[in-house]
Amino acid sequence: MQPRLEATYLVRCDARSIEERARAIAVEQSVEMPVSAIVDDFVRSQIVGRVEAITEKDQFFEVRISLSAETVGDDPGQLINMLFGNTSLHEDVVLSDVALPKELIENFGGPRHGLHELRRRVGAPARALTCSPLKPQGLPPAQLGELAKDFARAGIDYIKDDHGLADQAYSPFARRLEAVILALGSVQRQSRAARYVPSLSGDLDAMRAQIALAKDAGVDTVMVAPMIAGLSNFHRLVRENPTVAFVAHPTMAGAGRISPPLLLGKLFRILGADAVIFPNYGGRFGYSPDTCRALAHAALDRRDGLRPAVPVPAGGMTTDRVVEMLDFYGADVMLLIGGALLEAREHLREATSAFVTEVHRYAYG
Amino acid sequence: MQPRLEATYLVRCDARSIEERARAIAVEQSVEMPVSAIVDDFVRSQIVGRVEAITEKDQFFEVRISLSAETVGDDPGQLINMLFGNTSLHEDVVLSDVALPKELIENFGGPRHGLHELRRRVGAPARALTCSPLKPQGLPPAQLGELAKDFARAGIDYIKDDHGLADQAYSPFARRLEAVILALGSVQRQSRAARYVPSLSGDLDAMRAQIALAKDAGVDTVMVAPMIAGLSNFHRLVRENPTVAFVAHPTMAGAGRISPPLLLGKLFRILGADAVIFPNYGGRFGYSPDTCRALAHAALDRRDGLRPAVPVPAGGMTTDRVVEMLDFYGADVMLLIGGALLEAREHLREATSAFVTEVHRYAYG
Repeated sequence: MQPRLEATYLVRCDARSIEERARAIAVEQSVEMPVSAIVDDFVRSQIVGRVEAITEKDQFFEVRISLSAETVGDDPGQLINMLFGNTSLHEDVVLSDVALPKELIENFGGPRHGLHELRRRVGAPARALTCSPLKPQGLPPAQLGELAKDFARAGIDYIKDDHGLADQAYSPFARRLEAVILALGSVQRQSRAARYVPSLSGDLDAMRAQIALAKDAGVDTVMVAPMIAGLSNFHRLVRENPTVAFVAHPTMAGAGRISPPLLLGKLFRILGADAVIFPNYGGRFGYSPDTCRALAHAALDRRDGLRPAVPVPAGGMTTDRVVEMLDFYGADVMLLIGGALLEAREHLREATSAFVTEVHRYAYG
Repeated sequence: MQPRLEATYLVRCDARSIEERARAIAVEQSVEMPVSAIVDDFVRSQIVGRVEAITEKDQFFEVRISLSAETVGDDPGQLINMLFGNTSLHEDVVLSDVALPKELIENFGGPRHGLHELRRRVGAPARALTCSPLKPQGLPPAQLGELAKDFARAGIDYIKDDHGLADQAYSPFARRLEAVILALGSVQRQSRAARYVPSLSGDLDAMRAQIALAKDAGVDTVMVAPMIAGLSNFHRLVRENPTVAFVAHPTMAGAGRISPPLLLGKLFRILGADAVIFPNYGGRFGYSPDTCRALAHAALDRRDGLRPAVPVPAGGMTTDRVVEMLDFYGADVMLLIGGALLEAREHLREATSAFVTEVHRYAYG
């Protein structure tokens, strides 16, 4: 028997229509034509999506549909096309989970580095990691370099570009890279050097050129927005750069139409994200604690023999929430605080040091 | 003054909070940090997003926000990142329209061919165009070739791959291309030859390889799913292949979170789509007649000095709706019917001829 993948959808629908609706999704995500018009035996028996189960939940139905893994091959873009492509145009359906065949997961391979390597690189084998962003966009490279220096002196592990920083005229990628690396090189510290995580943008070739520059400058971690780059291109970069760790940014990941634990936690990880940034509960975005817990679990769990990806809760976090967040997530996490530190303005370094100290002194239970 | 782009959002929000919510969106889509913490004059005056207007509508508020065009540069991925990136994570906001600076639109350039060239290529200067898809996936190349032959003999103008057809083991792109071109070459017809429109998939390099094969085989029209390829990569292909016409497929374009007329009609066109497929009202998807009318208008209108892109309403259309659709859309349209023709099974050619005849004999008012 050919391997199949299984997609779970949450469908808002009345009970009378759910069986027909489920069959319609199975057809839409496979052959996209009336099944009665299919003569070919192989197509009828293998390629047409199958409704495997329909379960009534509180406000909706949970529908499990299996699809032939052959329709996907090994392309991540075609994977999301078969899982949700046309069905994403229906407002009443959410893609909530996916079970992929072992062979496909092994082919994608998951994080090349993951939690343990991101910890090792900054000399923090057991505690939560810290991260701060270079922002706002509009600042020239030298000022972003100064900011990086402040964060590094205060002991931040990973200093990332804000996801709005691209290759703009006021701060071109190459000049920003140079300025930040120069600034970080001037910082003496006892622990290992802070890591600069530049954000890649543009088409695949532009990203390749940026990653090559970054590697030449000694950078070993970069950030990509997989939903803007395209999943196939994101995964291509992962394959082409085995020494580089990838932080995935959630921009353009939509709200709720693909379950965040599935998209950001599971799929980005399977495609090679070493760390996944997501909006933490109680910040600027509407994710619930349950969603965040499930997302962190999907990034870290031991299933599929993949390396764990680091969950990076973010989006309006503050130092006074560090203890609460570490209580919630444990040590296998990277805490990302930005705006709240920048608000301290001339006291940025003290504010950042307080954040770092709070993370370092937390007593993991 | 630096050029700015203006984004319009529909926000579900109570009246007391809308001003604050609008400012929060303006900040999220620009500097993504507390404005009070920004010291730099250029950033404060130019880069921070500005709320230009808030208008109360029936169920929501329409919020217009202007953003510095410098934050985008000329990268389509960064454009969508700045327009909707993080805000796509909020469930209460829809991106409903965008006004781009003239320079940016000229830089992207819109359709390289558009309506008139797609008409010229098939010798149909005034009437609506016809299109049918090769499906279901799972069929071997030779059978898809036979299907293409039937469609061509019946007089279809454009014969496209179904968007599920990628580079699968049972029908690899190169072998399918060869089989379809061979089959079409055997069809003698009085009007100009039917055009095969293969669907590209994979990362940018894979798509480049496919497009090169297609051009070698004499193909001059291809299909791409911009939301899966990534907008930057889609636009890169357009720039690299000026002789090729591009049909944009809506898969993974989400439901309602970016207005379909904006995303499929306006943005895909600005980035170079020569034809845009979208779910017609009264088919398998939930778009309303108003949405479809606005989408067709956005694809065709004379603004910005761009060539018109061909609207391609689809998704469960039937021959008995041809007259109604032509009444609705007029002649500047490509009608795409698939499943309904395939349902005729051994009478496929007659059913297809009936579709073609219906389009050809329609008396445009």
